[in-house]
Amino acid sequence: MPQTPHIEKHFTASEVVRDIVIGMSDGLTVPFALAAGLTGAVASTGIIVTAGLAEIAAGSIAMGLGGYLAARNDAEHYAAERAREQLEVSEKPAQETAEVMEVFRAYGLTEEESAPVVLALCKRPDAWIDFMVRFELGLEKPDPKRAFTSALTIGGAYVAGGFIPLGPYIVLSAAQTALVFSAVVTLIALAAFGYLKGRFTGTAPARGALQTVLIGGIAAAAAFLIARLIS
Amino acid sequence: MPQTPHIEKHFTASEVVRDIVIGMSDGLTVPFALAAGLTGAVASTGIIVTAGLAEIAAGSIAMGLGGYLAARNDAEHYAAERAREQLEVSEKPAQETAEVMEVFRAYGLTEEESAPVVLALCKRPDAWIDFMVRFELGLEKPDPKRAFTSALTIGGAYVAGGFIPLGPYIVLSAAQTALVFSAVVTLIALAAFGYLKGRFTGTAPARGALQTVLIGGIAAAAAFLIARLIS
Repeated sequence: MPQTPHIEKHFTASEVVRDIVIGMSDGLTVPFALAAGLTGAVASTGIIVTAGLAEIAAGSIAMGLGGYLAARNDAEHYAAERAREQLEVSEKPAQETAEVMEVFRAYGLTEEESAPVVLALCKRPDAWIDFMVRFELGLEKPDPKRAFTSALTIGGAYVAGGFIPLGPYIVLSAAQTALVFSAVVTLIALAAFGYLKGRFTGTAPARGALQTVLIGGIAAAAAFLIARLIS
Repeated sequence: MPQTPHIEKHFTASEVVRDIVIGMSDGLTVPFALAAGLTGAVASTGIIVTAGLAEIAAGSIAMGLGGYLAARNDAEHYAAERAREQLEVSEKPAQETAEVMEVFRAYGLTEEESAPVVLALCKRPDAWIDFMVRFELGLEKPDPKRAFTSALTIGGAYVAGGFIPLGPYIVLSAAQTALVFSAVVTLIALAAFGYLKGRFTGTAPARGALQTVLIGGIAAAAAFLIARLIS
């Protein structure tokens, strides 16, 4: 089975990419939109940098925490569903046997064709429970380290993204000038991020870049307009 | 199969709960930490409310967008993997047949026991491809409406959460007094959120409440301290 390591790599990369995308798309967009919105209300960059850094700190911790809780939630959900399946296999074996048949019937198999596998599973209760959890409920056994890795990946991507739009405000003292540079570097960063994301996930990099710039740009512009209307 | 509707409900609820948890834990924490951080730098609540509302607008749009892109990414990943599996089934059927055997061997089944199912699948190439994508690669067919629903759920939960810590700053004019009320209502909201989350996901509600308050409180306190050290 020389294919499996390759497939496993594919699947794991997808989860890490998902976390980086969640963290970085927000890290690039929220501090940019916040700083841009405050540029209308404040002339000097001091208070904007304070608000921006506070936002990066709060956003990265909260998003990392959100990822941690979500992954923990998945792990608890898996354990609860497995326990329920275990109970059903021991208390209602006839019903569970019919449900194994049903899994194969969904793929067009007759009862005669699936019977040997169904009988073989009935002889191995532990394998039977694992089979039902994965093939009937569609749940994957969660990686116990996943919650922690997910939290660090999302939080780190947020910090890395957030310093890009905030950079010009840290370096320059005039808020209006900083806003122009911030918009330029953020759009370039969104394009580079979209390009790499596309390369990594297997979609066309140029299309990925265009997509990220368009959607990221629209989101930042909308948030900027809402902020300006409020102040 | 009277069990299936119940199971399906469980699984769908878990995805919506995951989205609400992602949006609301950030919506409660980030605007609270940002407002608290700015309370040290600014005396009146005017600029804090502007920054807070800008953050809620930016955060909800960016997080909703992040959820949309992540769900889209999952759908594209699924389509790419299915196309690859289709190619492998038509070009290397012998290898793919061995991989079906391998799926069942992982559950302790012998080649004789799994042979009828393997032969039956080989006769139905479309079902075979679907079987490999789900059972070998562990990928679920994504719901095409999922990306849009996920975006709205995360964004909506963020807005709903964000107005709770910001409320006292909107009503009161003294920033220090608003901070005290903001901390109180945010902690109460985190407890209620954790309680309902626990009830909905099947874990003990009291434990859920304690967990959310502890982790949410620690995250907000850490973000607050970082913001105060910066300014």
